Amino acid sequence: MTIRVDNLFANLSELYESEQSLSLFEKPSIKIERIVSQSYSSPPGFWYDQDEDEWVIVVRGEATLEFEGGELVRMKEGDHVTIARHVRHRVQQTDAKTIWLTVHIRC
Amino acid sequence: MTIRVDNLFANLSELYESEQSLSLFEKPSIKIERIVSQSYSSPPGFWYDQDEDEWVIVVRGEATLEFEGGELVRMKEGDHVTIARHVRHRVQQTDAKTIWLTVHIRC
Repeated sequence: MTIRVDNLFANLSELYESEQSLSLFEKPSIKIERIVSQSYSSPPGFWYDQDEDEWVIVVRGEATLEFEGGELVRMKEGDHVTIARHVRHRVQQTDAKTIWLTVHIRC
Repeated sequence: MTIRVDNLFANLSELYESEQSLSLFEKPSIKIERIVSQSYSSPPGFWYDQDEDEWVIVVRGEATLEFEGGELVRMKEGDHVTIARHVRHRVQQTDAKTIWLTVHIRC
């Protein structure tokens, strides 16, 4: 048996004002992703409205999430939140390179 | 609605040669934990043999996992592995403060 080791910080993109995701682990019931956000904001008026719970942590950088109703959540390195399914939210702004780890839970 | 923000690096213990876990998110089907290992080794002859898949990343520090059969997997910051259920493994050694994030998947 050979255990495969990958690194979260490998192959980071250099695409300004972008958001790029990479699947790290995936089953029908769960998906773990790395998201790299570079000076990124969700499009104006766009809201994530997901069928699944999401647990998300900022691994590098900083970001502000906006929740429907106006709540702003500022997140720095190590901060994590749980976003219950169908809680509408968007990325208000990230800094130049924010690396998130997200767990999408469908079960 | 108020979104609760916690930080992965809050309330770190200072217990030498220890391993301490903290649940960050838990449902019957999934558990996300922070584990802080401080100059820790699993007891000699001890093997984890879990009923669930585990995805694990080293967030701070370094560590070496040992798998049954003798494979050693050295992990540094950002390294992540998937350990399928019932793949027997143990912590061979961590450095003075290794912080892991683990996702236990039962679904």
